[in-house]
Amino acid sequence: MDDLPRRLGAEALGTALLLAVVIGSGIMAQRLSAGNDAVALLANALATVGGLYILIEVFGPISGAHFNPAVSAVMVVRGKLPSASLMPYVAAQLLGAVLGAWLAHAMFDLPILQWSAKVRSGSGQWIAEAVATAGLLLVILRAPAGRVAAMVASYIGAAYWFTASTSFANPAAAFGRMFSDSFAGIAPASVPGFVLAQLAGAGVGLGLHLAFGLRAQPTATGAVREPE
Amino acid sequence: MDDLPRRLGAEALGTALLLAVVIGSGIMAQRLSAGNDAVALLANALATVGGLYILIEVFGPISGAHFNPAVSAVMVVRGKLPSASLMPYVAAQLLGAVLGAWLAHAMFDLPILQWSAKVRSGSGQWIAEAVATAGLLLVILRAPAGRVAAMVASYIGAAYWFTASTSFANPAAAFGRMFSDSFAGIAPASVPGFVLAQLAGAGVGLGLHLAFGLRAQPTATGAVREPE
Amino acid sequence: MDDLPRRLGAEALGTALLLAVVIGSGIMAQRLSAGNDAVALLANALATVGGLYILIEVFGPISGAHFNPAVSAVMVVRGKLPSASLMPYVAAQLLGAVLGAWLAHAMFDLPILQWSAKVRSGSGQWIAEAVATAGLLLVILRAPAGRVAAMVASYIGAAYWFTASTSFANPAAAFGRMFSDSFAGIAPASVPGFVLAQLAGAGVGLGLHLAFGLRAQPTATGAVREPE
Amino acid sequence: MDDLPRRLGAEALGTALLLAVVIGSGIMAQRLSAGNDAVALLANALATVGGLYILIEVFGPISGAHFNPAVSAVMVVRGKLPSASLMPYVAAQLLGAVLGAWLAHAMFDLPILQWSAKVRSGSGQWIAEAVATAGLLLVILRAPAGRVAAMVASYIGAAYWFTASTSFANPAAAFGRMFSDSFAGIAPASVPGFVLAQLAGAGVGLGLHLAFGLRAQPTATGAVREPE
Repeated sequence: MDDLPRRLGAEALGTALLLAVVIGSGIMAQRLSAGNDAVALLANALATVGGLYILIEVFGPISGAHFNPAVSAVMVVRGKLPSASLMPYVAAQLLGAVLGAWLAHAMFDLPILQWSAKVRSGSGQWIAEAVATAGLLLVILRAPAGRVAAMVASYIGAAYWFTASTSFANPAAAFGRMFSDSFAGIAPASVPGFVLAQLAGAGVGLGLHLAFGLRAQPTATGAVREPE
Repeated sequence: MDDLPRRLGAEALGTALLLAVVIGSGIMAQRLSAGNDAVALLANALATVGGLYILIEVFGPISGAHFNPAVSAVMVVRGKLPSASLMPYVAAQLLGAVLGAWLAHAMFDLPILQWSAKVRSGSGQWIAEAVATAGLLLVILRAPAGRVAAMVASYIGAAYWFTASTSFANPAAAFGRMFSDSFAGIAPASVPGFVLAQLAGAGVGLGLHLAFGLRAQPTATGAVREPE
Repeated sequence: MDDLPRRLGAEALGTALLLAVVIGSGIMAQRLSAGNDAVALLANALATVGGLYILIEVFGPISGAHFNPAVSAVMVVRGKLPSASLMPYVAAQLLGAVLGAWLAHAMFDLPILQWSAKVRSGSGQWIAEAVATAGLLLVILRAPAGRVAAMVASYIGAAYWFTASTSFANPAAAFGRMFSDSFAGIAPASVPGFVLAQLAGAGVGLGLHLAFGLRAQPTATGAVREPE
Repeated sequence: MDDLPRRLGAEALGTALLLAVVIGSGIMAQRLSAGNDAVALLANALATVGGLYILIEVFGPISGAHFNPAVSAVMVVRGKLPSASLMPYVAAQLLGAVLGAWLAHAMFDLPILQWSAKVRSGSGQWIAEAVATAGLLLVILRAPAGRVAAMVASYIGAAYWFTASTSFANPAAAFGRMFSDSFAGIAPASVPGFVLAQLAGAGVGLGLHLAFGLRAQPTATGAVREPE
């Protein structure tokens, strides 16, 4: 456990870069797209896919590359993260998230300190966040060895579009986006609803994982395997 | 066979999520694209690629990740699925498809119960569905070990564009999309034509696979291999 | 050599599907993009990436998945294809290319028989085709084991954009596209110039490959390897 | 060391092709996008992702596929490149960069000799270049074996969007783009600021790598690994 500082550094830096990617690409996309929100979200989603993929590959071997309090909490339940590490992990993630938002603002010559005014609320949004987070946990818990980074990135890329909330799926991301009055922002008053929905979704994802039992190893014939 | 319930759960949940991805991303894309259907289909296709990839990786080891009655039928013919499992599989897929459509509607604050009014009909559409499904089966039956998820996802992404029907290639998808009056919908009266074309295409795909003989293992030199 | 018919079938079917993807996605993209050619080419390129990837994976183990007379010719020079197979391979590719164009037309309810009126000519276009084909051969000849499909697909996706000709890089593709008066078409009078440039480019690609010597195996540290 | 000429050839050709991809796809994208800069940057970024991926795979085993003086300098510090090779490497990269810009102009029937008039300057841009280059080095130095090409390509694809400068992250790229008055160009007067920021960023990336210690091997459970 003596490498806890190193792991916390990885969670803080990784979460900061994740938020810089999400918020920065949102700002760039909105500036260039001249009001075409579909093109802006396409750019925002593709940038997030690429960024998330490399962040998980880079920081996974150090800290697990959670960048997400809901993921860390599930890892504690699964016995993969000591419970004493949970609060430090979450603190590192929240700190990183805010710093990442500010880094994006610095790069785009925007005022560093901002609060989002973008209300994201209502039952549709909350269902969407619960679905998004349940799916994320299912992907993380059941990904074949060596594919978790590509799968999480692919999943979030899809979830930007198929969930009505563009899939935050991460309390630290919701926290950090609160500090940015830009394309990817969320009004502070909307954050608690998102976080509750995300935690509920994480629980659903864990429950589904347990219901489906042990993760089987992929077989030589891939998807056509029939576990008799 | 005692794990049939678990496998049916995987087929139902996987198909539900697939339809939620296809229909949900279609709704989001149409809302944001302000009438630019090419951008909307681009988003719809990319979301489907990401979603399909992770769904096959996640559920493949449990149920085979068919999510598609035409695939299940071919697997019975190939001896990979017990024939007694076919009807339960198809039922789980159809049920999942409807639930997935409804989940998408719930997320986007739309009326849950809908019927599509989008007529998709005519010889071009039917040829397209037959081609799309034949290609899908060829991909599934001949994918190298460990690549079926990436290949099916890539294939469907291409088929959204190169087939005139945007490639449903799946009777359960046609069934589920019938319940959504949105970008990805299909009028109920158009479903039987699509399903017949898909089943014919699946037969063609299986026939081509058999005609080309055993699937060879990839060699060290990849595509330049010359089977003497 | 007794499996020559099977290999020719793979070359013909694979080339047909490749042309159906290129031409079909071009038609769909142009129909939906309402004159926004950048969005149309984006869709056309992404569909081609997905289609090419799976076609090489599926048909590579059978015939080598050339789908391209310039590639087959280089494989003869490299001793990977018997010279007696060259003419049959090329014939299968050209036949497949025309059938693929016609299949695309059938799916999109267009007249089957067409001639393109799209002039593609001039030194910029020819340099572009030479560069595109040289790069393609370099990729094919130097791809690490098991990555040729992903690499060829990625390369062509890039080459749609960075070459002024949108990178046909394939005499069979030029031949087949001649039969389609659509987004991906090429006027018959422009085909000879393209084919000559492609063959010259293939020679350059082969020459570069030989100049760089034996293909080294990738090392554990990837791109930072220093061959002392 | 007797294969230095071969390695320099790989650095020069690889950098030339990289610049041809970046500049060529920028020209094509701008021509087709009719003023929609978001679509143009999307095409520019996707073409660069595909091109960078294959260039690193192709030239990595020969020269390390740096294509970037900042990367070569860090490799000297890391003991992966003899210090006597640094100046030849940088010269080959700069030469290749200019030739690549000119190749793009030749393909697009533009005057070969150009100077960019596009000013890229200010603290936001410089912070962005430092962040972009630090991230690039972190990716290169910590990528798991065999994934460096895919990771660098994914990273740059994201960095086109999340950094305010569209992520040159490469002094040779800045040098070569100076010779192109097109979408991807940079005014000569803006180059020194970019290069200084890139070198500072490379130092930060190296420092972060060292601070996180030895690169751990990925484990069977991927990102959920907990290094106790």
